[in-house]
Amino acid sequence: MTPSKSIPDLQSAKDSRQIPIDKVGVKGIRHPVRVLDKSGGEQSTVARFNMYVNLPHHFKGTHMSRFVELIEQHGREISIVSFRDMLPKMTQRLDAESGHIEMVFPYFIEKSAPISGVKSLLDYEVTFIGEHSGKDSTITVKVSIPITSLSPRSKALASYGAYNQRSHVILTVRLRDFIWVEELIELVEQAASSQLYGLLKRQDEKHVTEQAYDNPKSVEDMVRDVAVRLNRNGRIESYIVEAESFESVHNHSVYAQVVKQ
Amino acid sequence: MTPSKSIPDLQSAKDSRQIPIDKVGVKGIRHPVRVLDKSGGEQSTVARFNMYVNLPHHFKGTHMSRFVELIEQHGREISIVSFRDMLPKMTQRLDAESGHIEMVFPYFIEKSAPISGVKSLLDYEVTFIGEHSGKDSTITVKVSIPITSLSPRSKALASYGAYNQRSHVILTVRLRDFIWVEELIELVEQAASSQLYGLLKRQDEKHVTEQAYDNPKSVEDMVRDVAVRLNRNGRIESYIVEAESFESVHNHSVYAQVVKQ
Amino acid sequence: MTPSKSIPDLQSAKDSRQIPIDKVGVKGIRHPVRVLDKSGGEQSTVARFNMYVNLPHHFKGTHMSRFVELIEQHGREISIVSFRDMLPKMTQRLDAESGHIEMVFPYFIEKSAPISGVKSLLDYEVTFIGEHSGKDSTITVKVSIPITSLSPRSKALASYGAYNQRSHVILTVRLRDFIWVEELIELVEQAASSQLYGLLKRQDEKHVTEQAYDNPKSVEDMVRDVAVRLNRNGRIESYIVEAESFESVHNHSVYAQVVKQ
Amino acid sequence: MTPSKSIPDLQSAKDSRQIPIDKVGVKGIRHPVRVLDKSGGEQSTVARFNMYVNLPHHFKGTHMSRFVELIEQHGREISIVSFRDMLPKMTQRLDAESGHIEMVFPYFIEKSAPISGVKSLLDYEVTFIGEHSGKDSTITVKVSIPITSLSPRSKALASYGAYNQRSHVILTVRLRDFIWVEELIELVEQAASSQLYGLLKRQDEKHVTEQAYDNPKSVEDMVRDVAVRLNRNGRIESYIVEAESFESVHNHSVYAQVVKQ
Repeated sequence: MTPSKSIPDLQSAKDSRQIPIDKVGVKGIRHPVRVLDKSGGEQSTVARFNMYVNLPHHFKGTHMSRFVELIEQHGREISIVSFRDMLPKMTQRLDAESGHIEMVFPYFIEKSAPISGVKSLLDYEVTFIGEHSGKDSTITVKVSIPITSLSPRSKALASYGAYNQRSHVILTVRLRDFIWVEELIELVEQAASSQLYGLLKRQDEKHVTEQAYDNPKSVEDMVRDVAVRLNRNGRIESYIVEAESFESVHNHSVYAQVVKQ
Repeated sequence: MTPSKSIPDLQSAKDSRQIPIDKVGVKGIRHPVRVLDKSGGEQSTVARFNMYVNLPHHFKGTHMSRFVELIEQHGREISIVSFRDMLPKMTQRLDAESGHIEMVFPYFIEKSAPISGVKSLLDYEVTFIGEHSGKDSTITVKVSIPITSLSPRSKALASYGAYNQRSHVILTVRLRDFIWVEELIELVEQAASSQLYGLLKRQDEKHVTEQAYDNPKSVEDMVRDVAVRLNRNGRIESYIVEAESFESVHNHSVYAQVVKQ
Repeated sequence: MTPSKSIPDLQSAKDSRQIPIDKVGVKGIRHPVRVLDKSGGEQSTVARFNMYVNLPHHFKGTHMSRFVELIEQHGREISIVSFRDMLPKMTQRLDAESGHIEMVFPYFIEKSAPISGVKSLLDYEVTFIGEHSGKDSTITVKVSIPITSLSPRSKALASYGAYNQRSHVILTVRLRDFIWVEELIELVEQAASSQLYGLLKRQDEKHVTEQAYDNPKSVEDMVRDVAVRLNRNGRIESYIVEAESFESVHNHSVYAQVVKQ
Repeated sequence: MTPSKSIPDLQSAKDSRQIPIDKVGVKGIRHPVRVLDKSGGEQSTVARFNMYVNLPHHFKGTHMSRFVELIEQHGREISIVSFRDMLPKMTQRLDAESGHIEMVFPYFIEKSAPISGVKSLLDYEVTFIGEHSGKDSTITVKVSIPITSLSPRSKALASYGAYNQRSHVILTVRLRDFIWVEELIELVEQAASSQLYGLLKRQDEKHVTEQAYDNPKSVEDMVRDVAVRLNRNGRIESYIVEAESFESVHNHSVYAQVVKQ
């Protein structure tokens, strides 16, 4: 006569509305995680999870607590490998046919300033999106990379100077083969007017200022230059590349997007 | 010898990267607008606009200022009709084949409290999404509707009381025929445990509390009950219905989604 | 025998905890408002209201619905004058000694581009903060003004170019005498490297680019230059001036603040 | 003839505007940190830092890179002890008289469900605010604690049920003596209608639902009950306690605040 026996199990009851649910689950759970990085170490960070499964039309509800149990079992030691493992495990544990997990977290890379070499961290927002259906899992990686863009139009128009600003390039890729987040970031930073750093000495500030002026890039340029590089990379199956520039002369952004399916 | 003649037109230059751009334009422009409402009046509100067109591979860039000009011409008097007109006009003005406009704004409805009848406004977030390609335009309407949800599971388990909370039902619909935003909102509010009000007198608070207790709804119930109503409505072509419940016993949300294409 | 008579009035019950409450009320109510502008017209916008009163230790609670009633009575036609009137009215209606209202809204100003003269709106975030105690009311006005800042350090270090970015100058002023929001904005924009516009033609882009390069301003410069102008203005009693620059070479901001009490 | 010698040091130049700057520095730097917790372990999390010093009127600018250097030296291993050490170190390193550091981070506590005892993490937002002036440092701790509040008014009015919702109690305390964040959180959670959990089994859901119904708390009740407990605690010097309740029957919050200086 434990409470759990005497209490009705609503989730397993029949439903007569004839409406299958595409996604049902938990959203916005924050949990500490550890992720491997390319330098061979692992870094501790904090992720937000969204976890969903499908629900056939004849079941009344899903078991929300099972999603949280799964995070509790895996969260502290999660890696891209355990993330991949969670997908079929979740789908099976919830008696579902398809499963979907999103995990978004700040990811830190130690960068060396271009001239002085002083080291500092830069933070990027990374999202892993996993989809599982039948026996197949697909992992999509999304990275938001802050960079400097300098307006080619402003440079061409003005007798001196050129307006520039912080921009975000957002890369969403589906992979054929393993690729480090660091490689995606490097690919994008090379297509920017200049990359960002946490810490710059005077000689570094001179360098990045001149480098940006020498490499003017519109949002159109940035998405195209990134697309050209992604097209050459055999490990990338499909992608979306977006650039949003927080214009320094306007109170709005300019934006461009290239999709390759 | 005006400046505009002596200054190079970078946008029209040739591009050799062979990458067509799916969307390019402006993002996050805030502008006052007027929208018609079902009661026969019009309301003044403030919208954020995203406006994009495609760009063939051989053009270097788009003309960003033309998007802003279009808003300046239309913004203060925009309605669902002028919104629809802006789509082909923008696409043509930018020499593009396809165009995309999003416009998101708070929309206010005067509601009467259920017993006392006292009137107050409630705010909803509405998005119009217009897509134009060739000669065809499609308008999608998205409405985020805040409601009360009371947990059926908690009601069944507890000897008294039941936890409840504010939830959002987000309805994204593509229409065959005209429908007022007010009709979509009403359809959703009838599927909730209870609807929200700006102002409630004591007798109203009694009513909504008991009404919610009498109508427990999980996120699964809400998306299904809304889907059943949408399926019966001949003016709705396709839809996505989402429910997110900001659980009062957890620090995360529960979520459900039904898609009909 | 109406419901409102048979229902207990919890708010007026006695409280024995001996803890007076400094502020109690409603937060985050969204409502359409009309505000007068300097050009002689009035503009429709949407505000968020926070409204609080004090509560002596011996009262159990305040009457939350009265705050909303006050907004419903005033909201659509609110001006700086009716805002000022709401303060004592709210304080009295809630049987309180002190009252506090905050009202934040986007405010639009039509600007002419510097060379072409083309007109477009720019949006600013304005907050009115009213405090009432005894018979005295004080109004504080806060304006967030987006501008361009160009780094003097980068200009000095680099052989060509200079990094620049969008920045916010946030001005919080207590007034001795009436002053238009437009005057505060103009005062700040004159202290920036360059001001922002919704719409710029080519000759305008050339102008603002060169103007910013000719007027490098650090966050320290901006808060000082604004402070010097505020000190000279006899209508300003006290102020806080803040500048936050969304650095184009870093993924963080730099910030400065001057307070004059 | 190294670059750093040939490049002008703008920061140390004289300024003639006669305006001392109250705070100048860096804002919004994200960095991984480790913090000690009461259970004897340490947890890895991610913080955002704001770091400011004063600047006397005769100096042109501060050295922004020194703030970032300080974070790079301390960030990965920061604790409340090293946070305290950073204050005088920063102030001295920047040749300033006063310094100010804010550090905000998600903090996780493992909680056991009330009946089943199943364990799960709950996340709280914690801010350390340090101020240094002359030889004195003051540390203020701010914690945002999500809890359930059940409306006493709704319970009294309705024949059955009572509306409830997630609320935040935000505690800002200045300490006479060391106190764990866990102790502050526990003090607040005991004053709520019910506390939150990541994971609840059915018997736990029954318990928290009934517990909340047995302990109705308005925002006024919550700030007072927390204030009574803080007044009894000899280690607390001064405090602000705020409660914001995301009302399940409205689209706005109710709010209360008690300040003890």
